[in-house]
Amino acid sequence: MDVKGVPYRTIWLEGSELKIIDQRKLPHEFVVKNLENIEQVVTAIKDMQVRGAGLIGATVGYGMYLGALDAPAEGSDEYMKMIGERLKSTRPTAVNLEWAVNKQLAEISKGKNLQEKIRNAFNMAVKIANEDEGACRQIGLNGLDLVDEISKEKEGKPVNIMTHCNAGWLAFVNYGSALSPIYAAHDLGIPVHVWVSETRPRNQGSKLTAWELENQGVPYTIIADNAAGHLMRQGKVDLCVVGADRVTSAGDVVNKIGTYLKALAANDNGVPFYVAFPSSTLDWKTKNGKDIIIEERGSDEIKYAEGRGKNGTEKVLLAPEKSKAVNFGFDVTPARYITGFITERGICKPNEEDIRDLLYKK
Amino acid sequence: MDVKGVPYRTIWLEGSELKIIDQRKLPHEFVVKNLENIEQVVTAIKDMQVRGAGLIGATVGYGMYLGALDAPAEGSDEYMKMIGERLKSTRPTAVNLEWAVNKQLAEISKGKNLQEKIRNAFNMAVKIANEDEGACRQIGLNGLDLVDEISKEKEGKPVNIMTHCNAGWLAFVNYGSALSPIYAAHDLGIPVHVWVSETRPRNQGSKLTAWELENQGVPYTIIADNAAGHLMRQGKVDLCVVGADRVTSAGDVVNKIGTYLKALAANDNGVPFYVAFPSSTLDWKTKNGKDIIIEERGSDEIKYAEGRGKNGTEKVLLAPEKSKAVNFGFDVTPARYITGFITERGICKPNEEDIRDLLYKK
Repeated sequence: MDVKGVPYRTIWLEGSELKIIDQRKLPHEFVVKNLENIEQVVTAIKDMQVRGAGLIGATVGYGMYLGALDAPAEGSDEYMKMIGERLKSTRPTAVNLEWAVNKQLAEISKGKNLQEKIRNAFNMAVKIANEDEGACRQIGLNGLDLVDEISKEKEGKPVNIMTHCNAGWLAFVNYGSALSPIYAAHDLGIPVHVWVSETRPRNQGSKLTAWELENQGVPYTIIADNAAGHLMRQGKVDLCVVGADRVTSAGDVVNKIGTYLKALAANDNGVPFYVAFPSSTLDWKTKNGKDIIIEERGSDEIKYAEGRGKNGTEKVLLAPEKSKAVNFGFDVTPARYITGFITERGICKPNEEDIRDLLYKK
Repeated sequence: MDVKGVPYRTIWLEGSELKIIDQRKLPHEFVVKNLENIEQVVTAIKDMQVRGAGLIGATVGYGMYLGALDAPAEGSDEYMKMIGERLKSTRPTAVNLEWAVNKQLAEISKGKNLQEKIRNAFNMAVKIANEDEGACRQIGLNGLDLVDEISKEKEGKPVNIMTHCNAGWLAFVNYGSALSPIYAAHDLGIPVHVWVSETRPRNQGSKLTAWELENQGVPYTIIADNAAGHLMRQGKVDLCVVGADRVTSAGDVVNKIGTYLKALAANDNGVPFYVAFPSSTLDWKTKNGKDIIIEERGSDEIKYAEGRGKNGTEKVLLAPEKSKAVNFGFDVTPARYITGFITERGICKPNEEDIRDLLYKK
């Protein structure tokens, strides 16, 4: 997408330099950062310089390539497995992490010598990134129909869409999942307005989604996470679209903490609740969302808020110094509260049969 | 309740000086402030130096007394009505505001001369405060049974209670509503643990409820508002107890924004959801929660977080500078999601008949 008129992806190679947008600096600063080796890639994922299901997958893809560049000629497959394990351990919940590591390991092991292995790793990294971009673009086109239909029902009045966290282009290589249909509609001149829930504790909504929408000129309003139910009760939400970090074979959705509460409110108020994701987000090995390990992050993210203060990025303490706090990164929304899935292959109901039909039988 | 061993109410007279705890400074500083005239009382309510249903009622009670001290001998009733209107306009949602103004106006008008009117205003102010304290104490004793029952079922393991915002002693004259049963249980040695949702945008949970519980030695953990549903799905919540700013005759509850989402999650997970309030919170004139005007506050509360920074109280910006944000103060939880009401008269189901029976027939 464009940033001040210049087209960007969220991750790209310039020669042998891997470049990312340091997302911790947004929305106040747009900083492009070099990742020079696997250490820096691991840090970038752990510290959430990059985040979001698709972008984590692409970063791992490129990270494995950087790793391969440093691999020893003897025992390079074992070395790459070790690198893969390190990458997998950075964040426990996103399925794309493991998926990208496995894709790369399979491809790298096919190389007959280190040179071939490096070339394979490069090709796979580019393929993962390109496929992510293509899938997100297609999610936008598939989801566009839903927006268009509501727009027609409302006779061209703005379609009010609520989202959560950031499932825009910053969470992928380009376009995004939940925001992609919004961008597609906006590009076609369909009036949309987005309710951006701030998404405590890390405020990816108010920081990243708001920044994206501001940049693309899409009308939006930030709300406290607490206000989602109230807006739906007031009839001010026509559609919810969120992303996913992992989707089980039964259609349960693991996504940013707070997604489940929005789904409950949508269900209570008859608001359609869609989850948009590329099919790489599906985890066929897991059926029940309850079996997924939910990442627990540091308590300081709860006790403090970080933003732009008088002297740049600052933190303010929101609680007594001694307080205990817990910080779950994700929650599980049961399939029964989900209207449908928007994928690059089309739209389907959130159950195993329909997911299989959509992804494998067409 | 005690603050570092010294017993306090949240509002009190010392001679002719009205004293409050400036709640905007908590949890980092404990500041007692003088309110010297009606202007300062109006500001204290508007700026939320005092907040919470019961405390607003008591502040209005004392405010009307301060107003009466400055009333002209001629036309004092008209003057007091004007003062009453000013007080009523400070915050639109809390029913206790209007209730306390009307109680005072009725009492003041009974005085045959200004001296008598002032005496009546003084007596009524003290009565409102004392009744609030007494009701809250009794809410604690009535709610205690619920906690005790769960404690016995869990064979003495800590009862995990989730609350929202601050409905503790800081929201009333003393004891509080939602927290009063928790204090009563803790005092009796029943092990309890409180999930404190931070309650964006003003963080009354992490700032005030956490401070209260810390002071009283009650175990608690702060969570993001977004985490409420996840904890319930994990079976980590035995009971929800929240306060109320207004309760309609049909049993709909107006309370801090986000309450409705917690009620939905409790309902989805079979967690009992109780609302604790003194009967002064009942608004018999309103049946449907949808008819109540919901206070809309400034958007800066959403775009910024305020807390303790390196140089005292500071704000950090959480969004692009130009972003639009809306800030609803309250939401409405329909009676169907509420297990019961805990009042000073006892516990009842959230419907008109049971409320009437409890409050008027006993």
